[in-house]
Amino acid sequence: MSWIDVPGVTADAPFGPQTLPYGRILAEDGGTLAVRVGDHALPLRPLAAALGPRLGPLTETDTLDPLLASDAQHWSELRERLREITTATTAPPGARLVPLDGLRLGLPFTVADYVDFYSSRHHAENVGRILRPDSEPLLPNWTHLPVGYHGRAGTVVVSGTDVVRPHGQRRRTGTDTPAFGPTRRLDIEAEVGFVCGGPTEGRLSTERAEEHVFGVALVNDWSARDIQAWEYQPLGPFLGKSFATSISGWITPLQAFDHARVPTPAAPHPLADYLVETRPAGLELRLRVEWNGTVVSEPNFAVMSWSFCQQLAHLSVNGATVRPGDLIASGTVSGPARTERGSFLELSWGGREDIDLGPGVRRTFLEDGDSVVITATAPGPADSIIGLGEVAGTIRPAAPA
Amino acid sequence: MSWIDVPGVTADAPFGPQTLPYGRILAEDGGTLAVRVGDHALPLRPLAAALGPRLGPLTETDTLDPLLASDAQHWSELRERLREITTATTAPPGARLVPLDGLRLGLPFTVADYVDFYSSRHHAENVGRILRPDSEPLLPNWTHLPVGYHGRAGTVVVSGTDVVRPHGQRRRTGTDTPAFGPTRRLDIEAEVGFVCGGPTEGRLSTERAEEHVFGVALVNDWSARDIQAWEYQPLGPFLGKSFATSISGWITPLQAFDHARVPTPAAPHPLADYLVETRPAGLELRLRVEWNGTVVSEPNFAVMSWSFCQQLAHLSVNGATVRPGDLIASGTVSGPARTERGSFLELSWGGREDIDLGPGVRRTFLEDGDSVVITATAPGPADSIIGLGEVAGTIRPAAPA
Repeated sequence: MSWIDVPGVTADAPFGPQTLPYGRILAEDGGTLAVRVGDHALPLRPLAAALGPRLGPLTETDTLDPLLASDAQHWSELRERLREITTATTAPPGARLVPLDGLRLGLPFTVADYVDFYSSRHHAENVGRILRPDSEPLLPNWTHLPVGYHGRAGTVVVSGTDVVRPHGQRRRTGTDTPAFGPTRRLDIEAEVGFVCGGPTEGRLSTERAEEHVFGVALVNDWSARDIQAWEYQPLGPFLGKSFATSISGWITPLQAFDHARVPTPAAPHPLADYLVETRPAGLELRLRVEWNGTVVSEPNFAVMSWSFCQQLAHLSVNGATVRPGDLIASGTVSGPARTERGSFLELSWGGREDIDLGPGVRRTFLEDGDSVVITATAPGPADSIIGLGEVAGTIRPAAPA
Repeated sequence: MSWIDVPGVTADAPFGPQTLPYGRILAEDGGTLAVRVGDHALPLRPLAAALGPRLGPLTETDTLDPLLASDAQHWSELRERLREITTATTAPPGARLVPLDGLRLGLPFTVADYVDFYSSRHHAENVGRILRPDSEPLLPNWTHLPVGYHGRAGTVVVSGTDVVRPHGQRRRTGTDTPAFGPTRRLDIEAEVGFVCGGPTEGRLSTERAEEHVFGVALVNDWSARDIQAWEYQPLGPFLGKSFATSISGWITPLQAFDHARVPTPAAPHPLADYLVETRPAGLELRLRVEWNGTVVSEPNFAVMSWSFCQQLAHLSVNGATVRPGDLIASGTVSGPARTERGSFLELSWGGREDIDLGPGVRRTFLEDGDSVVITATAPGPADSIIGLGEVAGTIRPAAPA
């Protein structure tokens, strides 16, 4: 039996030793990198000596940055060593477990570039139908390449950070002129994020892309739909998104998802060579979106048409380099069913249908004080469960104008 | 007479002591921050002691990062002290001048977020007429807010870096399907960049924005028009831009442009309060674009409809923070005349009109081996001239497919 005798450290719980996500514990003494086991954290800084001269230096810090700057070989070795440590019968010198309750987690790495894709066909079609009802819902490029754009890296925040309702310009109804004020259509996008690392290089094949993804996070790409609708032509989303993007405090290593691999849905035509995959890189991740405690959506990431390998191969095919700390978000995870829509724009069908949050409580978009929590699990080896850290946020009222 | 007795250190030359731009000299011993005087560089690392305990630590490095992370008060003090040093009759201890010829300049700061605006009305209208001939050239939002988007920070490179022709998908003529290969429409965008610093904060007024701009660079936002045209709907430019963005190796302090201030052109209607300026923040910068040695365009930055203060007030009005190292590019600088167009898309009117590069040499877009150099000057105090560092780049052939 393991020396770790705390709740949730079993294979049928999401944070047993089959998962071991990394997080950053904030503390007045400078904090530490940690792995999660059940409802406890195992700080890594005190284990540096036990981890030895090759791995120890990667953990003597409070962020994932040194680990991301190493490579897939180091990631694999450290994960194996931590699995040994967390399943051993005796604790290594320096090991102590800290209850998560009361711990404060920080943004686990320095975000380099943040790219947001748009890889659920159901989401793209829903948005097309809602916002451009008189045209084809899917634009012709969508099935040929993973559409994406750059977001603001400096406003990526960790789960638990409050989100202040943003001000901005929105179109005055029925005119081509704007009004200014707090957004009236504050929304979420339930997404999955891929955290990049390894040597900085460009032109990654789909195979090589695997070596550049360290781990997986949950992402809430908060969106102000009225600001976005007025600003986005012709250069894309900007202030409608840039006020905040939340990511989970725990980053689950990509290796933990080996048993969750599924092929992406077949493309309707042959793809350009650089987008063809040899190993399936879709992922069976079951997301759950809770709004003020009510589950409003349960999309499955397996519906996504473009995998993280295709996304990385695409974003680097022009020679653009991928750096440690790059964050690649999937785009809103929406499935075909109404109960699988990953944004409130879709769930309320453009604000026209109420979303039921329990007796007498109805919403279309977010109100001040509302909270959203996104969680997810994946199948692990031998019927175990792999967990992703939650991404949570609460809306605070707009600042004075 | 100053101890600095080298060519170009006079008020009627662009890099006299009225200018003093900062750059990063690469060297095997770790390099140094430097200021430019005429055709020489004055390394700052050896002057740290002479600069004293308050300013010295900001220069004991090879990048601008520590200086950007300080504040406008430090920037002003350091500039004043360097003006004293460069105009004194005797050199301070440690001072030595190095000829620029043979020096290698590095990217002068770590780019945090890179935002690219679209603030020349002439450029926006030209592009609208060329790409969307059947619609109004200017979209309704354009006169109400500075349209912009996030670019890729990780592929901002210093002047002199070769640019490899990017691969990508482009629309197969007359179809809704793509072809893949090296871009056939490789273009430039002559822009001006504003380098941000000071404390990280959101919601900057136009007045406060001034305190967050350290200096001014020239920018060439290389663009693959065929890749861009196929990919950009609905989320904006991505791979058509992300392969490389070049900036000058020298960053001229904002203070140097006090005598170049001009009002921006009047807006056609009242602006939202947060975009109203109290001090003119347009700039009289005379740009010059050379293509293989032939001057093809001379736009003046004074035509830009949105100032850097309005751009910063806009990008932060939703609460988004501005960090040290943020790079804010103006968008292509195009004036009303044909000889003032800041992109080859405009100069060749969508590839339909040849651009004359001398006897027997005609171009529409860039060919392999072509070089582009963008330079600029501004009026300084007492009829002096303020220079911006050049941004130069040469096209290398596409990598093997």
